[in-house]
Amino acid sequence: MRYFLTTTCLSAAALLVAGTANANEELIKLQQDAKQWVMPAGNYNNQRYSQLKQITADNVGKLQVAWTFSTGVLRGHEGGPLVIGDTMYVHTPFPNIVYALDLKNDGKILWKYEPKQDPNVIPVMCCDTVNRGLSYGDGKIFLHQADTTLVALDAKTGNVAWSVKNGDPGKGETGTSAPHVIKDKVIVGISGGEFGVRGSVTAYNIKDGKQVWRGYSMGPDSDTLIDPQKTTNLGKPVGPNSGTNTWQGEQWKIGGGTTWGWYSYDPDLNLFYYGSGNPSTWNPKQRPGDNRWSMTVWARDPDNGQVRWVYQMTPHDEWDFDGVNEMILADQNIGGQNRKTLVHFDRNGLGYTLDRTNGELLVAQKFDPKVNWTTGVDMDKNSPTYGRPKVVDQYSTEHNGEDVNSKGICPAALGSKDEQPAAYSPDTGLFYVPTNHVCMDYEPFRVRYTAGQPYVGATLSMYPPPGEQNMGNFIAWDAKTGKIVWSDPEEFSVWSGALATAGGVVFYGTLEGYLKAVDAKTGKQLYKFKTPSGIIGNVTTYEHGGKQYVAVLSGVGGWAGIGLAAGLTDPTAGLGAVGGYAGLRNYTALGGTLTVFTLP
Amino acid sequence: MRYFLTTTCLSAAALLVAGTANANEELIKLQQDAKQWVMPAGNYNNQRYSQLKQITADNVGKLQVAWTFSTGVLRGHEGGPLVIGDTMYVHTPFPNIVYALDLKNDGKILWKYEPKQDPNVIPVMCCDTVNRGLSYGDGKIFLHQADTTLVALDAKTGNVAWSVKNGDPGKGETGTSAPHVIKDKVIVGISGGEFGVRGSVTAYNIKDGKQVWRGYSMGPDSDTLIDPQKTTNLGKPVGPNSGTNTWQGEQWKIGGGTTWGWYSYDPDLNLFYYGSGNPSTWNPKQRPGDNRWSMTVWARDPDNGQVRWVYQMTPHDEWDFDGVNEMILADQNIGGQNRKTLVHFDRNGLGYTLDRTNGELLVAQKFDPKVNWTTGVDMDKNSPTYGRPKVVDQYSTEHNGEDVNSKGICPAALGSKDEQPAAYSPDTGLFYVPTNHVCMDYEPFRVRYTAGQPYVGATLSMYPPPGEQNMGNFIAWDAKTGKIVWSDPEEFSVWSGALATAGGVVFYGTLEGYLKAVDAKTGKQLYKFKTPSGIIGNVTTYEHGGKQYVAVLSGVGGWAGIGLAAGLTDPTAGLGAVGGYAGLRNYTALGGTLTVFTLP
Repeated sequence: MRYFLTTTCLSAAALLVAGTANANEELIKLQQDAKQWVMPAGNYNNQRYSQLKQITADNVGKLQVAWTFSTGVLRGHEGGPLVIGDTMYVHTPFPNIVYALDLKNDGKILWKYEPKQDPNVIPVMCCDTVNRGLSYGDGKIFLHQADTTLVALDAKTGNVAWSVKNGDPGKGETGTSAPHVIKDKVIVGISGGEFGVRGSVTAYNIKDGKQVWRGYSMGPDSDTLIDPQKTTNLGKPVGPNSGTNTWQGEQWKIGGGTTWGWYSYDPDLNLFYYGSGNPSTWNPKQRPGDNRWSMTVWARDPDNGQVRWVYQMTPHDEWDFDGVNEMILADQNIGGQNRKTLVHFDRNGLGYTLDRTNGELLVAQKFDPKVNWTTGVDMDKNSPTYGRPKVVDQYSTEHNGEDVNSKGICPAALGSKDEQPAAYSPDTGLFYVPTNHVCMDYEPFRVRYTAGQPYVGATLSMYPPPGEQNMGNFIAWDAKTGKIVWSDPEEFSVWSGALATAGGVVFYGTLEGYLKAVDAKTGKQLYKFKTPSGIIGNVTTYEHGGKQYVAVLSGVGGWAGIGLAAGLTDPTAGLGAVGGYAGLRNYTALGGTLTVFTLP
Repeated sequence: MRYFLTTTCLSAAALLVAGTANANEELIKLQQDAKQWVMPAGNYNNQRYSQLKQITADNVGKLQVAWTFSTGVLRGHEGGPLVIGDTMYVHTPFPNIVYALDLKNDGKILWKYEPKQDPNVIPVMCCDTVNRGLSYGDGKIFLHQADTTLVALDAKTGNVAWSVKNGDPGKGETGTSAPHVIKDKVIVGISGGEFGVRGSVTAYNIKDGKQVWRGYSMGPDSDTLIDPQKTTNLGKPVGPNSGTNTWQGEQWKIGGGTTWGWYSYDPDLNLFYYGSGNPSTWNPKQRPGDNRWSMTVWARDPDNGQVRWVYQMTPHDEWDFDGVNEMILADQNIGGQNRKTLVHFDRNGLGYTLDRTNGELLVAQKFDPKVNWTTGVDMDKNSPTYGRPKVVDQYSTEHNGEDVNSKGICPAALGSKDEQPAAYSPDTGLFYVPTNHVCMDYEPFRVRYTAGQPYVGATLSMYPPPGEQNMGNFIAWDAKTGKIVWSDPEEFSVWSGALATAGGVVFYGTLEGYLKAVDAKTGKQLYKFKTPSGIIGNVTTYEHGGKQYVAVLSGVGGWAGIGLAAGLTDPTAGLGAVGGYAGLRNYTALGGTLTVFTLP
C-alpha cells in the first residue's frame, strides 16, 4: 500500500492556515503533495521517497547549485530543512537557531528564532551539539532544543506560541531529536543514554503544549504504558512488570533506553514506531539481565501512549548498539504474502523486517558482511531463544569481562548504521542504507552513577575492518530476503540521510562533503558535488516555481566527526571516534551551510 | 604600458621551486602567467585584471558552482585566495588559519596552519577580526596575523620557516592587511588607527625575517625616512621635520596614519605605493594642524624605504576619511599625453589620478555625487591651497566643534569606498569601483589617550543619503576625466573587491551574498548567484586543467557587517555601522565559505 503517494497541488496560501481543526488532516494532505517536504522524513512512513521526477538518472549529471545559505553555526548539522509553500525552515545545532527562508528570493530570511540556552548543556551532549530538525503542524513549527525545551513557533512570524520543558539537562537529559506531529499531539523523545537517563516518549497537546502522556522505556507498567496482557512480544503477552523484572534492583531508574530517532506512523493502524537505545552503563557486567526495554522496537498508540507490541533486538547490550534507528514502513510481498512491514537497520548490524501490525519477526540478516559479534538471530519460533541474536564469545564484552580489551568487534559502537536515516523506493522495492563499516576494541570498566555525569563505563577505539580502507558503504537492501543488492564503498561512514526519488535517482552525502546521486537500480554514481563541509544532514527534495530542487545541510560533526567538531585530538576521545575518523581533517572543516541544487 | 600582461605558461612543478635566487624575478614570471593568482591583487599594479577570457559576457550567464569549501571560521572574510600551480591558499579571519587546497581534488586539504594567538587581540581590532590575505615569494606563503606576527610558511608543507613580531597588540597594534612581497623583502603595514597607533610600513628579509627598514607615517625624518630636500609634495621638497611640524607637541607619537591597504609596485620606477590612515583621535579639535603624513599617498623605494613623494589628500581629517585605500597603477593618455598614472578612490569620496613618477595631481573628482563635505580640490597650481580640498562649513566637525552633532555629512566615516579594492581593465580603460553610498551624523568629543584603549573621540550614526534606499553603487570610472561612466545601485555597500577580465566581464560580491557579473562596457548584470553568506572578499580568477575558474570568499562582517559579526545590536555600536546596516540580518548569517565557479 502506498497510502501517501497521491500528488495533489495545494496553493501556498492555503498551506499555512493556522488553527486548522485537525492538524493531522492538514499534515496528511501536505505530505500527499510531493512539492512540499513537511516533516523530517517527508511523510509518516519514513520512506524519504519523493514522487518528484524532473531530476532523473539521465539528467542528474547536469545538476547545478541554485543557491546556498550559511547558518552562522559551526559543529555538526544533522537533519534537514522543511519546505511548506514558499517557505523553507532551516535549523541549526546548538544554539538551535531556526530560520524561515523565502524560496521566492534565494533564501532571504523571513524570520529567525534564536533561543537563549544555558551553554552548560553542551558538556552533557554525548556526541556533538546536534539537532535533528523541525516538525510542522497546526500553523506552527516545533523545535526540541538542546536544553529539552519543546517550543512551538508561529510558522509565519517565528513568534513563540508555547514552550514546555521536556527534561532536565542537570540529569544529563538533552534534546537532539526532531519532534513528530501525530494527529493533535507533538511527540518527542529524549537523549542522554551516556548519562544514565531513563528514556521516554512524551506527547504534548499541539494547541497549548500541555503534556498528554509519557511512556518510559523501562520501569513499572504504569510508567511504560505497557499492558501485561495486551502488549505483546513476538506474539505473546509480555506479562507483568516486564520493564523492571530484567533489571537488578532499581537499576531501571537509570536504565537508558533513550529515544532520539526518527519516528514513523501508520494512520490506518493508529500506531507509531520508534526504537529505544542502549541500557546504561556501557559496562554489561554492572547490569545483569536483559535490561528490557532498552534496544527495542516499539509500537505505541499515539492517543494514549499504550504499547501494542515490543521487540527487543539486543537483550543485555554489550557494545552500545542503540536501537534508536528509524523504522521504515513499507508494504511488501514476502513469500507470496502481502505484509504491512516495518524495516529497521539496527546499530547491531542486522536489518530487520517485521510485521508492523503485530511485531512478528520476518527477516533478520546482516547488512554488513563484516558483522561478527553474532552469528545471527534465532528464527525458530519453537526455540526458547527465538528472536534473540546468537552472541559469539570472542566478541562478547560480558564474556570477556571487565577491564579486558575485547578486540576486533564489528561493528563498532556507532553501529553498522547510526541515526543517518535510510530511504525506500516503492519503484525498486529497495532500501537505500547509509552505513558505517567500522570495527572496534572495547574495554568495559566499573563506573559509579552520579546525576549529570557521564555514565559510560567503557574505553573504545575504532578503525576500518582489518585489511580494508573504506569505513562506509552506501547499500541497496532487499528487506524481503535480507540481502544486499549493491554496495558503493565510501572512504568514511555515510553519516547522511538518504533520499529516494521517482526519477530513479537516490541521493546521499559523505563526510568529506560530497553530495552524491546514484542510480536507484544499479548504484552507479551519476553526480557528485563538493559542498562546503562534511555532510551529516539528510537530503530533501521539493518543487518550487515549477522546478524540482534538492537540498542538503552540510556541516561536519556528529559522533563520527566529533574530533573536528569539538577540536579533540586524543584518539580515544569521542568514545573512540576521534582516532577512527582522524583522516577527515584532510578533507573538510566546520561550517553549517545549506546547498540547494536544481537542473539548469 | 602593460608590463605584466604577457601570458606565459609555467608548469606547476616549476612554480614551487623553493629558494629561488631572486624572489622578485620568480614573482614577475608568475604574475605574467594569467593561470595563476600569485599575489593579493593578481599582480603588482593592483589592477585586479586577468587576461583569462574563457568566461565572456556571452557565456557568463551559464556559470556554475564547481566546488565549495567552508573555512570553519565565522565573522568577516576579507581578501581572497592565492592560486599557484595546483594549489590554492586560503586564509581566514582570527584565528588566521591558512589552508593549502588541492585543485586537482575539489579542494582537498593538503595542509593547514593554525596559529595560537592570544584572543585578547580581538577587542583591539576596531572593525571585525578580518585578515586581508596572503602573499607568496621564495617558496613561502606569508601571513600577517592579528597579533602582528608575520609568519613565513613553507608553501609545500605549511611548516613555519620563520616568524617575527611586527607590533604590540598591548598598544592597540594589530595585523589585518596582507603582506606584500617586493624583490627580496616582505613589506607589511599595521592597523590600529582607533587606538592611537603610529602607523608604519616595515620591510623584512624574505629569507630569514630580519627587519631591513621601517618607515613611519609621522615623526622625525629619521623615522619617516623622508629626505627634506629630495622627498617632494606636489613637486616641491617637503622641507625638514614635515612629520612633526604640523602636530601639537608630541601628538605625532600617537598620531595614527596606519597602513593596512593593498600596496602596489612599479618595478621600472622601483617605487611602491600605499596610503596612510586617519590621524588619531577622531576629534579634530584635539589635534590642531594638518597632521602630516596621515591621509597621504606614499611612494617609497622598497630597497631602503626612502620616500620619493607624498600627497596628503585630507589634511587635518575631521571625518575618519582614512587614506589607506589601494593605489592602482595604470598608464593612461591624459590630455594627449601618455602618463604613468596612479589612481586612488579615497574614503573622502574623491577619485584621484596622479602621475606616479612624481606625485603630480592630475584629477580629483567626486566618485559619488552625494559627497558634500567638500566642494572639490583646489587645482590651481599657483594657489596657496593648491591640492587641498575645500571644506564646507556645515559639514566641518572642526568648525561645528566638540559635542555638536554634525548631521548629514556624506560620505559616512567608512567612506565612499573603504578597503574593498577596485579593478581596472586596460581593454575598456575604465576603473570598476565598489562603493559605499552612506551618510552620517558625527559628534566629536574629548578623549584621553591610554595605551591599548580605544582612542576614537566621536559618536556616529550612518544611513543612506536622504530620500534614497541604496547604500551602495558599483560604478565604472573614467580616471582620465574623473567621471562616472555607469553606476549599478546596490541595496548595501559593495564591500567586495572587484575583478576585471579580458572576457569583458567584471565581477563583484554584495553584502547580501551575491556574486555578480556585469558587462564591463555597460554595467548590465549578466549573472548572479547567492553564496552562503555576505561577501566582503575579493574576487579571484585562475585557470586549472584548461578551465577558467572564478573564486570568492563569502563570510559577512567587516566594518559594514560588524553588527552581525560581533552580535551587536545597539545602533550606535560599531562606530555607527550597526544601525546603518541593520537590514543585513534579513539576508544573511555568518560563515566563511569559498565558492568556486566555472562554465559547464
